[in-house]
Amino acid sequence: MSQEWNDLIDTRHEDSADQLRERQIQLRQMPIEEVGLLLESLPVEQRLADWRLLDEPERFDVLLAMRADPRERILDDLSKDELDELLTDLDASELLELADSLSGRLIDRAFKRMDEQQQEWFLSARQYDDDLIGHWLSHEILTLPQTAKVRDVHRLLRRQHPEYRDAVFLTNRVGQYAGTVRLSDVWREQDHIPLADLISEGVEPLVANDRVQEASGRIQSARLAALPVVDEQGKLLGCLDMTTALELLQEFYEAQLMAGAGMDNEEDLFAPVRKSAKGRAIWLGINLLTAFAASWFIGLFEATLQEVVALAVLMPVVASMGGIAGSQTLTLMIRGLALNQITPANRMALLRKELSVGSLNGVIWAVVIGLVATVWFGSSLIGMVIAAAIAMNIVAAAFSGVVIPVILDRLKIDPALSGSVVLTTVTDIVGFVAFLGLGTLILL
Amino acid sequence: MSQEWNDLIDTRHEDSADQLRERQIQLRQMPIEEVGLLLESLPVEQRLADWRLLDEPERFDVLLAMRADPRERILDDLSKDELDELLTDLDASELLELADSLSGRLIDRAFKRMDEQQQEWFLSARQYDDDLIGHWLSHEILTLPQTAKVRDVHRLLRRQHPEYRDAVFLTNRVGQYAGTVRLSDVWREQDHIPLADLISEGVEPLVANDRVQEASGRIQSARLAALPVVDEQGKLLGCLDMTTALELLQEFYEAQLMAGAGMDNEEDLFAPVRKSAKGRAIWLGINLLTAFAASWFIGLFEATLQEVVALAVLMPVVASMGGIAGSQTLTLMIRGLALNQITPANRMALLRKELSVGSLNGVIWAVVIGLVATVWFGSSLIGMVIAAAIAMNIVAAAFSGVVIPVILDRLKIDPALSGSVVLTTVTDIVGFVAFLGLGTLILL
Repeated sequence: MSQEWNDLIDTRHEDSADQLRERQIQLRQMPIEEVGLLLESLPVEQRLADWRLLDEPERFDVLLAMRADPRERILDDLSKDELDELLTDLDASELLELADSLSGRLIDRAFKRMDEQQQEWFLSARQYDDDLIGHWLSHEILTLPQTAKVRDVHRLLRRQHPEYRDAVFLTNRVGQYAGTVRLSDVWREQDHIPLADLISEGVEPLVANDRVQEASGRIQSARLAALPVVDEQGKLLGCLDMTTALELLQEFYEAQLMAGAGMDNEEDLFAPVRKSAKGRAIWLGINLLTAFAASWFIGLFEATLQEVVALAVLMPVVASMGGIAGSQTLTLMIRGLALNQITPANRMALLRKELSVGSLNGVIWAVVIGLVATVWFGSSLIGMVIAAAIAMNIVAAAFSGVVIPVILDRLKIDPALSGSVVLTTVTDIVGFVAFLGLGTLILL
Repeated sequence: MSQEWNDLIDTRHEDSADQLRERQIQLRQMPIEEVGLLLESLPVEQRLADWRLLDEPERFDVLLAMRADPRERILDDLSKDELDELLTDLDASELLELADSLSGRLIDRAFKRMDEQQQEWFLSARQYDDDLIGHWLSHEILTLPQTAKVRDVHRLLRRQHPEYRDAVFLTNRVGQYAGTVRLSDVWREQDHIPLADLISEGVEPLVANDRVQEASGRIQSARLAALPVVDEQGKLLGCLDMTTALELLQEFYEAQLMAGAGMDNEEDLFAPVRKSAKGRAIWLGINLLTAFAASWFIGLFEATLQEVVALAVLMPVVASMGGIAGSQTLTLMIRGLALNQITPANRMALLRKELSVGSLNGVIWAVVIGLVATVWFGSSLIGMVIAAAIAMNIVAAAFSGVVIPVILDRLKIDPALSGSVVLTTVTDIVGFVAFLGLGTLILL
């Protein structure tokens, strides 16, 4: 598979008609998700050419499977008619998925072409942010009144049989969720048995206002293909299925990884140079401000640096050790916050533990680095200065690593995005000031 | 829910008998996965106390749901008899999950108590590394010969009905996989219809030797609760189910996030201080070596630094801009490599694009920083020196950001783990040498 995949991405040769045909056959045999990944990994012209090799209905599904940015590069290249054809007959969930890549005018047009039911679903999903379960509801569910019997399931399935549904949800007279019955429990039962007797224990409905990360654990433990979703009043709105949960989980983690470098999860591998440069420039700019701040603090000690140039040589060691130690604590905190494991209640205990780890590592590395510096510059005073600065900075890093993400989280700023900038600023400044300040006091 | 959860983690108050009883009721009502997360977020003594509040059978399931490190802290505290009781009656998959946390002797004992079938499954799973699908197989599948008819499904389901299975797998006479039939397609059919007529199109079996990340996309597109898994000869071995795929995906991404700071995914929030410090010390040590390398290069320019102390003040700016620009490219590459989107075929195109982005950002920031430095130190020469160094370092960062992960990947070293250390070393050294070297040439 790996070789074949490489061949598919390899587009350096000229394509003859035969090669094109062969490529078309290969593409058509691949699962939609893989075609999406493949197209994302191709430079833009080739991406478009390959996309046009697909069958009409597949073309649309592949677009849905792609990230927003690479998808837009294809949409941008379509003629008005092509776009028009593509956007006929969307359902609510498809339009939701595409909405980020479409202009307001196009969304409007696609919206007006949907039937009333789909329009209603589209509008209701849009009321929820895309990190909430309500945004990602599926309405393909099997529902029956809670008074129904086994025979009603058979009847329902003769009329309607959504794939990948392994349960029927029961509702009461006012539409509130009343229980989940697994289809596998129904098959063995006789026609007159009330479904209420077959309700599965331990299936808790999801709430539309909950965050999507909470869903995946719940779906895992319920072992159902889809969990019921209710609103605050308990009304059954739809379901969240396993496939969507898997996709959302993947997006959540990818977004966290990308956020660490100040980038967007939708970023195209082959984004246009200017767009890409612009997107990254903001992050570089923010970091520049923090770097200048650190420089400004160093500037306070110009006289010292002129006297003892060894301090300038060793500065990166102090900054780097603080930054690394802090990022370890920060990463642990980011994971904990994402999993809801950090709360006001255990924060103090965590802080104590991280400060202990920091003190221990601070002392150990202070000794090591102090000795190296003493030998290197033949001065035990320089060794003592850097040892003290390292110890202080590693402890400060542990403290900041716990406190900064908690504060950011409370300010509703994603610690995965901003945590490391703020942290590095703190450890740089603490490190430089401690090191150069002590140097000024002791060495001058 | 959030308030309740906070209360549960809040253990600062003394527990009266009433409070304990209430806590026990709350714990017993929570899904297993959530209890696991909760116990992980508690300091050790409280963790153990809470675990003992659970019912016997739940205790075991919660241990299975926890990360290896926090789980070990509970296992370590159990008496020999308790442990013995806990490890009676394991099946192959449970023992596999626990194996990391148990001594060889305990694994042996649990192994000997399993029946032959489970022993065989355990040994065959152990032949696969834990990043391969073969390690995570479930053997709870419904299989029938490819000549079977609809009535055989009904018979099979009367005897055997694993939950959460929505398909029957067909095999030929020698046990090779021959197709998947969805149960939802069977219910409507008459008894004499051959199952071979009902095979779902587009279900490709997974191969036991494939990496687990590849599975989640495939399960998503198949929309099945479990995909069949075969060996290299096409023999049906078992299945990989959606729940396991979701869990593995989550672990994969968490491991990547933690690796970025040189930490293990199994790390306990409340690991013992010494163990935790030791685990992190290695990473700090590696980074110390690279920081000393950077310092050594700075040391080459001691004379220059003594003359022009402004260079020492501005050093962090050069290093930081290179590091940030490089980490952006690196992060994009790490995501691409994880998704199989980077191959020999598109690497050159990617490198060209990243170099273009780097050049553009390099020039822009060179101008900005050059101007600031000129004004700050009242010297256009200093401005020119830093501008040139910044431009060079950002371009070098783009180059390294593409090349380093590719080389690491080829050497079978995880770029998510080591990429940033290697990259920062390169950008630090290139930055300092360019900046101080140019400074020596121009300013002295």
